[in-house]
This record gives sequence, structure tokens and C-alpha cells, in this order.
Amino acid sequence: MLATLAAFVAKQAVVEGAKVLLGREVPDDDEIPDVTTPDPEEDADPVTEEMFSSWALFILLFLLCSALWSSYYLQQRRIKAIHETVLSILYGMVVGLIIRVAPGHYIQDAVKFKSGYFFNILLPPIILNSGYELHQANFFRNIGSILTFAIPGTFISAMVLGVILYIWTALGVDGVKLEFVDTLAVGATLSATDPVTILSIFNAYKVDPKLYTIIFGESLLNDAISIVMFETCQKFHGKKVTFSSFFEGVALFLMTFTISTFIGIAIGIIVALILKHSHIRRYPQIETCLVLLFAYQSYFFSNGAHMSGIVSLLFCGITLKHYAYFNMSRRTQIATKYIFQFLAQLSENFIFIYLGLSLFTEVELVFKPLLIIVTFISICIARWCAVFPLSRLLNFLYRSRFERFSRNTVMSGGISSQSQPEDISHSYQMMIFWAGLRGAVGVALALGIQGEAKWALLATVLVVVVLTVIFFGGTTASMLEILGIKVGCVEENDSDDEFDIEAPRVTLDSTPNVNLMGNRRYGNGTYSDTNTSTNYRNTSNTSLPYIKGSSHSSRNNSTPELPTLDDDLNGSDADDVFNAGTRNADTAHATTAAVAQQQTNGLLGAFLSAEEHAKWFTKFDEEVLKPVLLDKSPGQNNDDESNV
Amino acid sequence: MLATLAAFVAKQAVVEGAKVLLGREVPDDDEIPDVTTPDPEEDADPVTEEMFSSWALFILLFLLCSALWSSYYLQQRRIKAIHETVLSILYGMVVGLIIRVAPGHYIQDAVKFKSGYFFNILLPPIILNSGYELHQANFFRNIGSILTFAIPGTFISAMVLGVILYIWTALGVDGVKLEFVDTLAVGATLSATDPVTILSIFNAYKVDPKLYTIIFGESLLNDAISIVMFETCQKFHGKKVTFSSFFEGVALFLMTFTISTFIGIAIGIIVALILKHSHIRRYPQIETCLVLLFAYQSYFFSNGAHMSGIVSLLFCGITLKHYAYFNMSRRTQIATKYIFQFLAQLSENFIFIYLGLSLFTEVELVFKPLLIIVTFISICIARWCAVFPLSRLLNFLYRSRFERFSRNTVMSGGISSQSQPEDISHSYQMMIFWAGLRGAVGVALALGIQGEAKWALLATVLVVVVLTVIFFGGTTASMLEILGIKVGCVEENDSDDEFDIEAPRVTLDSTPNVNLMGNRRYGNGTYSDTNTSTNYRNTSNTSLPYIKGSSHSSRNNSTPELPTLDDDLNGSDADDVFNAGTRNADTAHATTAAVAQQQTNGLLGAFLSAEEHAKWFTKFDEEVLKPVLLDKSPGQNNDDESNV
Repeated sequence: MLATLAAFVAKQAVVEGAKVLLGREVPDDDEIPDVTTPDPEEDADPVTEEMFSSWALFILLFLLCSALWSSYYLQQRRIKAIHETVLSILYGMVVGLIIRVAPGHYIQDAVKFKSGYFFNILLPPIILNSGYELHQANFFRNIGSILTFAIPGTFISAMVLGVILYIWTALGVDGVKLEFVDTLAVGATLSATDPVTILSIFNAYKVDPKLYTIIFGESLLNDAISIVMFETCQKFHGKKVTFSSFFEGVALFLMTFTISTFIGIAIGIIVALILKHSHIRRYPQIETCLVLLFAYQSYFFSNGAHMSGIVSLLFCGITLKHYAYFNMSRRTQIATKYIFQFLAQLSENFIFIYLGLSLFTEVELVFKPLLIIVTFISICIARWCAVFPLSRLLNFLYRSRFERFSRNTVMSGGISSQSQPEDISHSYQMMIFWAGLRGAVGVALALGIQGEAKWALLATVLVVVVLTVIFFGGTTASMLEILGIKVGCVEENDSDDEFDIEAPRVTLDSTPNVNLMGNRRYGNGTYSDTNTSTNYRNTSNTSLPYIKGSSHSSRNNSTPELPTLDDDLNGSDADDVFNAGTRNADTAHATTAAVAQQQTNGLLGAFLSAEEHAKWFTKFDEEVLKPVLLDKSPGQNNDDESNV
Repeated sequence: MLATLAAFVAKQAVVEGAKVLLGREVPDDDEIPDVTTPDPEEDADPVTEEMFSSWALFILLFLLCSALWSSYYLQQRRIKAIHETVLSILYGMVVGLIIRVAPGHYIQDAVKFKSGYFFNILLPPIILNSGYELHQANFFRNIGSILTFAIPGTFISAMVLGVILYIWTALGVDGVKLEFVDTLAVGATLSATDPVTILSIFNAYKVDPKLYTIIFGESLLNDAISIVMFETCQKFHGKKVTFSSFFEGVALFLMTFTISTFIGIAIGIIVALILKHSHIRRYPQIETCLVLLFAYQSYFFSNGAHMSGIVSLLFCGITLKHYAYFNMSRRTQIATKYIFQFLAQLSENFIFIYLGLSLFTEVELVFKPLLIIVTFISICIARWCAVFPLSRLLNFLYRSRFERFSRNTVMSGGISSQSQPEDISHSYQMMIFWAGLRGAVGVALALGIQGEAKWALLATVLVVVVLTVIFFGGTTASMLEILGIKVGCVEENDSDDEFDIEAPRVTLDSTPNVNLMGNRRYGNGTYSDTNTSTNYRNTSNTSLPYIKGSSHSSRNNSTPELPTLDDDLNGSDADDVFNAGTRNADTAHATTAAVAQQQTNGLLGAFLSAEEHAKWFTKFDEEVLKPVLLDKSPGQNNDDESNV
């Protein structure tokens, strides 16, 4: 009975699959459809149409499964030579090739890279999760370096690339003629570095938080900056460019950036106030949905108003985590974290598959090998020009600031425990350079390139992006070792969710054998694993839930040769477990605030009086913003609860 | 500074919003685009295009927020006269009207009801969550009634509707001429009842689980059956129908149903085996994604193979929960529940907004008032013909079975505690009739209607669906009271997740003042609320996370006038809290199995020897399937853990 059914299903699937691949209509090769107006719904019959889209979606889901499975396999076998994003691209390419060779065109149209899908569906979850999971203390401690690399860095990179490409195309070797604003647009396109691959490797290695934060912050912000630069260039397309255009462009850019940040923060604060002043935490399912919907609204509102949705969403995520999070019900806190992580994870994997697919399914691409090689070399040069001079500038500022600071503290008898300026060492500079792989944002932007050379430029961008991911992404792990970057750092983490769920399990480990790194306090009940092979095997064979939280956007990674003490176990959590009555959001909040305060006090090498700003902001935050935005001040809560 | 920014943003937003609404091009009213091949990407410029789609998405998100907020408000204020789905439809209609009146056409195209969106994006999460959250014991206890109402019931309903519509159109009053297969297709379309509205009301009132389960199961399955019937009718469209076609159709239908079930169960079992035989639970983020991806694959695979994706996904969800769930890491168990609930919640709300929107944004609709009135009356007649005769048949079978069973037990000296056959009382029949409101599945199917009368029929289906939701949905709460249906039932629940997170909080309530209903055992620490007004106010004002789990697809509801002891607190959970070492999935599983066994033993009124089947299956499940599919047999786990 089952066998018959299975046979029937298999037959049916093969028949339908063949139909799909062969296509209902054999496409006319002469007729090249305009890719900006794809019309995948040519087959008017909705049943057929749905069948086709089902297969297209099935293929995509299958690719996603394969990519995730490979990711698991690589991590499980501790294979570091190949990275999962490279595999994702390869899977995409293989399936793209099959779809391309097959005579049908429906699926080919359905799986094409559409900038709308990318910007409206795939990108927001990644940005939102980045903002939500951001280690705020680290981020703001390094805000000076991040902004320096992100804003002038991206600008330099785009200019250098634009100039090189302009000179190259002016030589006329490839028969591609471009205006300078157009090459600058391509430069902007190729200046957006990708956060996904590099950060998943950094997570796996637990790279020094400072380097991590700089690269993470830069890659997040320079996406936004590239988009704004690209759109600014597009506005000048075909127009006469004067010298004043430059200042107009810069002014436009700065305004967009400021307003977008403002929109994001405003929406985050609105959510915090709504949660504070309503009883919606009684209905956590509705609450969870509303938090996500509001965040997405900031993105689409910003985009709709010609601002930068990425910047808005990023700052909305940060604000949500900083204020609104502590007004949420416990279930919503956990649910939002899990949901954002889940969506981001799927999007990240999907983007690389999508890139691989589009190499073959974009039929109109015109590949110019020389242009591709020149562009690839240029982006390395452009990145070099952006990273090294700016690092020197930063180091210079750090040092002069440190000297001034030392004088002041010696005079005022203040903090003197700091002895070294936190500058960016040469190996860090090299790693920042190496982390300049390009991602899907570039490709999505390149779809908007106008003019005759559109298809040649799109092909170039696509190939260069894939090459950087394969080349730089594949060698990052080795570079970390070659450069001798500090790895295995246990980070301070203000996250408490993932461990809480597991909390009572802590009592199982009565004899903690934890290899501590870092200077954090831990509770007496700790969650240890992977230090002895026996433990390791046991955890894998029982159904013991092995919760490894990561504070960053990428997935959890198990690297048993490193001390992989769970990030999310920090002292306050472990205490909570044994003091059940006090375990609530406000406790966590108080701890976070204390940690932030402590970090702010110990803050030294920040750029351009960031320290004073941080202190001022922390004070303002604690004394004005938190009492207004949060449900109640920390500490008060416990009394209330004991009255219940 | 802030004020200036705000003013600028507001201006920008208004300008852009106006641009969007006015449209870049004023549409030519004479040119009626073919709705089956919408081409929203007419504006080739991706920047403009993205701006437009951002506004479209912003509007949709804003509507979703409004709907969710209304839902919260209605529940908070305990307003029962208006239901949130009715409000969702109204919001959709208002915005649809504004979009319609505005001269732009881009947003109008963007927000149009597309069957592809519905079947590929909105429907799967609802079905998956239904399967995953299904109370399995209740479902299988009532499987006889459910299948009777779902299969012959939908068939009778579609036939009656088809005949009435055929006679009406043959009279020629409206100038609509239809073949019998076409009216039968419309009948099938309008025989799919909607699970969302009615179940959210039932959840709020905690209606008798038996009635709940019958209506829930029927509305889930008859969607699938309508789809299969509709597609079968479409295959005969324009062909000569002979008497043998009837049997051909029935055979096709049964085969589709069986194979789809098989696909769903097979994929669920594959996931269970993968989770069992891999170490993927060490990477819970990947695990979560894979579980969801596999479930979706069952849907798309089934649809692609011309089977019923709904049926496959439903059974895949049930199988996942029954087996794979216990092989997952704790984090994945919680994450999958939250993610499925979240996605289902958003989809449910969105569907009704979408329906409201499409009343005005579908420009080609031809409204025939008489046809609409006749159809509305017909669906009541059709539902009547399906519910009441079948209920009688079921009652007859129950009674004869009960008599036979009593004789047997008296003879064998077996169970004699059962004194009443569990038949379907008249008030239950009336409620099942009343629960026959139609939903979005009907509209999505109607988009596939072929032939000249397409637009008239689509308009009719759309209006009738909206009318049933407003009329039946708006009066369900009153009907429950008029019919005197048992409400406030605390259900048995095998869910343990939502409470676990809150677990240590239990110790706060040292003096439980819980009003127990039902015959379940509870731990000594219980989670009480809303019984005294003081408690109620406290929970609302503190940040005490107020987790109310619901075992069903709809959101949580607070109905403080009823004993709202949290569903998810059952004995095993409370015990777990105080016995932290044993809290793991397998313990919960053991409890579930025990409850299921107990329920199976006490099972009486099941239809057509369902009891023996259930016993046989429970035995097979415990002795063969669970040892093969689950990670280890229950009980064994604790020993292992104490060795860790």
C-alpha cells in the first residue's frame, strides 16, 4: 500500500517536475524580455501558475535546507577551509545552471534576483536582528572608529573605484563608455561590505570584541551609506555635474543619514511608550507582532520618504533593545529574540543562494572579463586606500587623546589604571582590509544602474561580489591565524534570555569545570560543556538541550577546541536562578545599566571626546530617559511583586 | 533641531505619499488591465518602484498594527458585540476605498488579492500552526465526526449550492449563464469554512473542547477538500460530463487526500529521524530553520505534485509535534512554537485586511446584487443540509454503538462508568451550522474560476464571504449564550513550553486560589490571576510577564469573568519546576503519552470502531514508532542526565 503510494507520488513528482523544467511553452530565444518588467504570470491559469510557483519555492527551500545542513556539517566536522556561504553560492550556481540549461523559462523568471524582494523581504530581518542583538556598550565604545571607517571610508572607496573605472572605460578596451557619475555609482555599489560571512567566522572564533565590533559596525553602516551615495549619484545621472554638485551631494547625504537615524529612534521610543502605558503585555502574542510590525514600519516609512531604511531600522532595533525590551512581557522578550534571529538566519542563507542562482538565471548579463578583472583589482586598491590611511588617522587621534587624557588624570588624580592607548594595530588594519568582501546589497543596488552599459556593469558587480565572497570569505579563517588575532574571547553580554530558559538545569553541574577567560563574575551554578570529551559525547547523545546563545546576527557556532563557555551565562542570570522571585526584566536591566556604566567609566580610547559624550548620555539616559520610557525604575519591582 | 527634522520628515512623507497616491502616471480608465497578469513593475526605475512598494507595504503594516491594536482593545475592554476580524475587514475596506478613489494605480495593483500570495505565503503558516498546536488527543477522539462533517458535509454543501446556483442562473435573471460543473466549482469554493474567526471566539470563551475540536477539525479539513473538489471541477470545465465523471471525481479526490496525508506524515517522520540521528540539536538556530523548512517543503512538494498541500502540511505539523518535537533541543521546541504562532497570527490578521481591501481594489468586479442575495441564502441552505442530516446520522451511529458497547462491557465486566453516549446535541448542531462562515480560501479559489462569468462570480464570492464573516462572526458570541453552550472549560493540554519559561515565578503564589474546572491534577505551585480584582490590577501594573498560552491557532485571550487558569499549567509542568533535574522534553512526552493512553481508555463515543483503532494505534505508537523515531524511551533520560 505504502509502496504503491510512494511510487505514484514519485511518478507524479517526476512528471510534474519534468513539465516544469521543460516549460509549458518553449521560450523564443530571440525575444529577450526586459528584466526590469518581468512577467512571470504569463500563464493565466492560476492552477498551473500555482504549480509552477510551488516548484520554484520547493527548489529554493531545498537549497536553503542544503545550505543549512552543510553549515551544520562544516561546524560539526570542524572544517574551516570551506565556508558555508561559499557553499551556498555554489549550490545556487549549480541549480541556476540546471534551470538555465532546461528549456523552461517560468522557474528561471521566478528565481531571478529582484531588488524588490531583496530590499523588502530579505534585508530588513538581517538589519533588525543586527540592531537588536548589537552589543550596545561595545558599539558605542567604538562609535568613533566605526563612523570613520563607514562614512569617509566608504566615500574614499567609492571615489577611488569610480576614478579607476572611469579611466579604464575611457581607454575604450571593452567598448563600455561611462560618465563619471555612473562610474561613481558603480563605485558606491561596490563599496558596501557584507556583514554576514565575516561575522559568522568571527563568531565561531570569538574574535576580540573590539575588532569584531569595528568590522560589524562598519559593514552595517556602510550598506546604508552606499545606498544613499548610489541614489545621490543616480539623481545626477545624465545631468551636468558642476563642482557645487559635490557639496549638494554631501549635504543630501548627511541630511538623509541624520533624519533616518531620527526616524528609527523615534519609532523605537514610541514602541517603548506604548508598551509602558498600555496593558498589552497581557497579550504577548499581539505584543510580539506589534513590536516587529513597528520596526518594519520604520524601515518602510523611511524608504518611502526617500530616507535610508537600513539606518532607521538599525537604530530602531537598538532603541527597542535599549528601552522597549524592558517593558515587554517575558514571553515577548524571548519570542522577539528568537523570531528576529530565525528570520535573519533564513535571509542570510537565502541571499547567497540567490546570488549564486542569478549568475546563471539572469540571461541578459554581458560578461566583460577584462572589466571584471580590473574591477576586482580596483576594489582591493579602493579598500586599501580607505582602511590604512584612516587607521593611521585614528591611531594618531587616539594617541594624542591618550596623552591629553593622561595629563588630565594625573593632574586631577583620577583613573590611572589605563596604561595603553587602544589603537588599531597593524594586524587589525589588515583584518579590516580583508573583511572587505562585498555582498548582496551591491548586487541589489546594481540592478538599479541605468544607461546602455547596464548589463555589463551588473554582470561585473555580480561576478566581483561572488569572487570576493569566495576569495576573502574562504581565507578569513586562515588570515586570522596568520595575523595572530586574539581569538577565544568571552564577551560581556547583556542578553539573558537564552540561558533563562535553561536555568534550572544549572543545578545539574554541581562541580563547575569552567575555563574562564575574561574578567567577568559568574554565579556558582554554571553551564559547562565541551571541555572534556566525555561531557561532549554525553551532551550530544542525550536530549539535553544544548543552548548556545550568540549575541550577534549569525548563528551559533560550536568550536570545541576553544573555551566555549556559553556567552549568555553571566553572573546576573545565574543569581537569578537561585533567587527566583527576582528574576524579571528589570533585574536584567539594572545589571545591563551597571555594566554599561562600568564600561563607560573604563572607557578610554574613544574618538573625539566620545567618552564625555558617553558619560553625558549615560547620565541623561539613567536620570531622564529610562524613568520616562521604562515601566519602572529598577529595584522597585521586587517590592511590588512580594506584595502580590 | 528635532522639531525641524520632524517637520522635514513630515513634509517629505506627505509629498511622497501624495506622489504615490496620485501616481506617476494617471491611469487610462478605458484600458482595463487583465488581472491575472498584473504588471506592477511598469515603472522600470527601481528607485521609484521601491519607493512605491515601500508605501504599499507601509500601508499594509499600518493596517495590521491597527487590527492588532483593535484586537487588544476589544479584549481589554471586554467588548463582544464587534469582533476583530470584522474590524480588520472594515479597515481594509476603508483603505481600499481611499486607494480606489485616489487616481494612482500602482498601489492599487500592489495590494490586490493575488491567489499566489495567499496560497504560498499567507495560508501555510496558519495550517502549520494548526497542526502543530492541535490537541491531538481531542482531535483523534473526534476524528469520526470531523471526517463526516468534512468530507460528505463539504460534498453535500457543494452539491446543494451548485444545484441552486445552476437553477438560478438557468432562469437568466442576471444574464449569467453557467454550466453545471462551473456552478459546482462555485459551490466548492463557497463550502470551505474559515477556522480563524470562530476559533478565536471559542478560545476566548473556552468552549467545550468537543465542540471546539469538531468545528476546528472540520474547518481545517474542508479547506483541503474544497480545494481538491474545485480543482477536480476545473478539470471538467468545458468538457462533456458523463455519469462516470462523478466516480472519476470521487476516486481522484480520495486518492489526492490519501497521498497528501502520506506525504505530510512521511516528511514529519523524516524530520524526526534526522533530528534523532544527527547532532544538530547542538546548533538550535539551524535546527529551528530546518524544522520549518521541511514543513514548508511538504506543502510545496504536495502542491507541486498536484496533491493537497494543506492536507500534507496539516499532517506534517501533527507528526512533527508527535515525534520530532521530542528530539529537538529545548530552545528549538520553544522557538518553533513561538515562530509558528507568530507567523500564523500575522497571516490571520492579514487575510481579513486583504479581503476588505480587495472589495474595492479589484476594479474588474461585476456586482450582481440578486445573485449575491441568492448565493448568501443558498450557502445557509447548503450548510443546513450538510450539518443537520449528518449530525443525525452521527447520533444514530453513536447510540447504536453505545448500546452494542454497553452490552459488551456488561458481558465482559468491563468499564461501566460511562452512562451517556456522547452525541451531538441540538445546540451543538446549531453552533456547527453557525460556525459555517466562509473565509479567504474561498476567495483565493474563486480567483481561479474560468469563463465569461468570472468577474461576476468572483464579486459574488467576495461579497458573500465578507457578509458571512460580518454576520455569523459578529453573532457567534451571542449565539453561544443563546444556545447555552458550555463555556469556561479548562482543557487538557500537552503543551509545556510557555509555562516553563515562567516556571520559577510559580513560587510567588504560595496560596493558590485557583478555581479548578475539569478533573486534572495540578502541582502545588500554581499560576493564578484575574480571580480577584486586586491581583488583576497588580499583574497589569507590574512588569510581571503575563503569559497566557493557548493551545490553538488563535491568539491568547483574557476573559477575566471566566476561570482563566492558564492552559499551559498542568501537573507535570508544576512538578517539573520543583524538580529541576527532570525537566526535559522526555518527561513532558511521557506525561503526554500517559494522558493520551488514559484518554484512549476512557474513550467511548467514537465513530466506527475508532476506539479499537485508537487503542491499536496507541499500542503500535508506544511499542514500535516511538522507540524508532524518538531519541530514547521516556524515563531512561533521567538516568543518563544524572551521569553527566
